[in-house]
Amino acid sequence: MSTAIELVTTQTVTIDHELRLESGRLLGPLTIAYETYGELNAQGDNAILVTHAWTGDAHAAGRHHEDDRKPGWWDNLIGPGKVLDTDKYQVICSNVIGSCKGSTGPTSINPATGRPYRLNFPIVMVRDMVRAQKLLMDEIGVTKLVTVIGGSMGAMQALEWGVVYPDFVRSIIPIAGTGRTSPMAISLNALARQAIYNDPLWKKGNYKPEHPPMSGFALARSVGHISFLSEESMALKFGRRFSARDGLFDLFGQFEVERYLEYNGNSFPSRFDCNSFLYLAKSLDLFDVARETGSLEDGLEPLACPSLWFAFSSDWLYRPEQTEEVVEALRQLDKPVEYHLIESDYGHDSFLVEPEKFTPHVAQFLGRLEG
Amino acid sequence: MSTAIELVTTQTVTIDHELRLESGRLLGPLTIAYETYGELNAQGDNAILVTHAWTGDAHAAGRHHEDDRKPGWWDNLIGPGKVLDTDKYQVICSNVIGSCKGSTGPTSINPATGRPYRLNFPIVMVRDMVRAQKLLMDEIGVTKLVTVIGGSMGAMQALEWGVVYPDFVRSIIPIAGTGRTSPMAISLNALARQAIYNDPLWKKGNYKPEHPPMSGFALARSVGHISFLSEESMALKFGRRFSARDGLFDLFGQFEVERYLEYNGNSFPSRFDCNSFLYLAKSLDLFDVARETGSLEDGLEPLACPSLWFAFSSDWLYRPEQTEEVVEALRQLDKPVEYHLIESDYGHDSFLVEPEKFTPHVAQFLGRLEG
Repeated sequence: MSTAIELVTTQTVTIDHELRLESGRLLGPLTIAYETYGELNAQGDNAILVTHAWTGDAHAAGRHHEDDRKPGWWDNLIGPGKVLDTDKYQVICSNVIGSCKGSTGPTSINPATGRPYRLNFPIVMVRDMVRAQKLLMDEIGVTKLVTVIGGSMGAMQALEWGVVYPDFVRSIIPIAGTGRTSPMAISLNALARQAIYNDPLWKKGNYKPEHPPMSGFALARSVGHISFLSEESMALKFGRRFSARDGLFDLFGQFEVERYLEYNGNSFPSRFDCNSFLYLAKSLDLFDVARETGSLEDGLEPLACPSLWFAFSSDWLYRPEQTEEVVEALRQLDKPVEYHLIESDYGHDSFLVEPEKFTPHVAQFLGRLEG
Repeated sequence: MSTAIELVTTQTVTIDHELRLESGRLLGPLTIAYETYGELNAQGDNAILVTHAWTGDAHAAGRHHEDDRKPGWWDNLIGPGKVLDTDKYQVICSNVIGSCKGSTGPTSINPATGRPYRLNFPIVMVRDMVRAQKLLMDEIGVTKLVTVIGGSMGAMQALEWGVVYPDFVRSIIPIAGTGRTSPMAISLNALARQAIYNDPLWKKGNYKPEHPPMSGFALARSVGHISFLSEESMALKFGRRFSARDGLFDLFGQFEVERYLEYNGNSFPSRFDCNSFLYLAKSLDLFDVARETGSLEDGLEPLACPSLWFAFSSDWLYRPEQTEEVVEALRQLDKPVEYHLIESDYGHDSFLVEPEKFTPHVAQFLGRLEG
C-alpha cells in the first residue's frame, strides 16, 4: 500500500464574480489556485480544506515533479492512511487571495487598467479570503467540509469558516491561532513593513519584479522568521556559536544565528512578492473575529460546529493565552470545544516542525466526527 | 527634610592611560563622564556605583537645570532617604566607554589621526567598560564599592565587577540580567544592525553627525523598543486601537501601537549616535561571563561577594530563566545569593518603570550588608 501522493499539479479556476470585500470594494473576476488530493464523493461532502499561513501556497502535499527535493508543506499530514486520509477524504488546499502564488493578488492584472494592481489592490481581510474559498468550493462541487484545518493565518481562516459558513463546515481545527492579533504581533509586522518602506528600491510598490527591494524585503522576512522561532529552538540549533569565518572582535563579525537569518532572508525575495507580503501582513494585523461585534463571545456566537484547538508552549507570537482566550469564550457559549497545549520547543513554527505532536488528537477528533 | 537631589552636573575626567582591551587593542587616553550624588567619606568606602543600560548615560538622578522636565533616569532610587541613600552613600554613575554620552566612544577624536574614530573604534566588551570604571574609581578616590547596581547591560557590568574586582566590591545587584546573551537577543540586535546597514545614509559609519541614517536608525531603535516592552504592557497601553486619523482599509493605516513606535523611533537619532548604538549592541551580544572559561560555574568562581538578583515575569528579552541559570550556578558554588522573580507587566523595561517592586529588597539587602 502506497502512503505517498502521486504527482500533483496546482490548478487554477477563474470565477467570473465580483466579490464584495469587507472594505466595500469589489474584487473580480477571481483566479484561485488550488490543489486536491483524493477523490470527492458523489455527494461532495467528504472534503477537508487545508488553509495556509502568511507566505504559504496551495502546494500542501505530494510533489510536482519526481525530482522535487521537497514535497508540499504539510505532506506529513496528507496522503493515503495519513491523518488527513486521502483514501477517505478529498483534501483541498487553495492559495489565498492577496497572495502571489497563483490566486488574485497585487501582482495580478487589474482588469480596469490592464496593468498589475500593485498598491491599487484592495485590503483583503481573512474573512474575504474565506469567502473566495467558498466560491471555489461551489465551483468544484464541494457541498460540505468535514473540517477546515490550518496553522497561524490558516487558523484564522478556519475560525472564520466556522463563523461565516456555520452550515457548510462540520468542524474546524485552528492551530497556533488567535481570535484577534495582538499588539505585539502587529508591532513586529510594523517593523517588517518599515524595513521595506525604507528600501529605495521599493518605489512605493512600483519596483520591477526583477528588481525587488532585496535588502529591505530580506530584513522584513528576518523579522518574521525570528517571531516564528523561539528562544529554545535558537538555543538548540545555534547556541552562542560564532561564525568560524568571522573575527570575534570585528563589528561585522556574526554569530551563526545571524548568518542563518541573513541567508534565509536573502533567499526570500526570489520566492515571494514584496507587495503581497505587505498586503497579507495587513490581513494578519486586521484580523479580529469580533471586529464588528466588539466582544469575543458575540463574534463567536454564530459558530455551530465542534472545534479543536492547539497552541504551542514556546510560541511567543500567538501565545497559548491567545488561543485560550478564544477557547474560554467558546466554553462560555457552551460550544463543543477541545483544546490541547502542546509542549514544543519550536515556537510558532511548531505546527510545521512537529506535527506528530498534535496529529493523534486530530485523528481521534475526525474519528469521533465520523461517529 | 529634602528628599530631592540638588542640581547636578555631569563631570568628565580624562585618564592618561591606555587600557588594554579584551581584544588586545589599546584605547586611551580615556575620557569618562560621570555624576556623583552624596559625599564620599574619608576612607572612600561608602560609594555605590550605578551602571546604565545600552542607551543610558551618567545622568541617573537629579536635574541639570531647574526647568528640566524630567530628572535622571533612576531618580526614584537615588537621593536623601531613598533606597540608594545619598545621606549615607556617595552614589556614582558613569557613562560607559563606547557610548556617545561624554565618555570615549566612536564619536571621540582618535588621537592617532586627529579625526573621529567612527568604525575604527575598537570593540569594547562589558568587561572593558568595567575596567574603565575602575580607573575612574581610582581617580576620584573610591577605595571600595558598597555595591554595583544596574539593569540590563547595567546588570552585566555589575556581574563583571564582582568577577573581575572581587576585592573591591562588597556586593552586586544585577537586575534583568543574564550570564550570557541569548541567541534570541543577538538575533534582535542583528535586525537592528541590518536596518542601519540598509540605510544609504549610514555610509559605512561615515555619515555626517547632522545627517545620520534617520530611517534605518529609527527602525533599529524600534526593534529594541519592542524587545523592552511586553505583550501585556502593549495590550494595556494600546490594545488594538486603530489610529483615529487613519483608514482601517488603507495599507498605510496604523494601529496606535505602530504610531507610538514610529514616533519614538524617529525621535531617537537626535539623541544618540548611530555608531555608538552599533558598538554597544555588539558589546551586549558578546557578553558571556564564561567566555574564557566555558562553563558558567568556572566563569563565576572568582565572585566573592553576596549578590542580589532580580528578574521580571514579563521580560522576554532577558527572560527570568536566564537570571535563574546564573543564580543556580552561584548556588552550586555555595556563593551567597538572593533572587527575586518580580511580577511585572512591563517587560524588560520593568527595572525603569516599576522600581518600587524591587527596591524594598534592595533596602533590606543593603541593611544586612551594613550589619
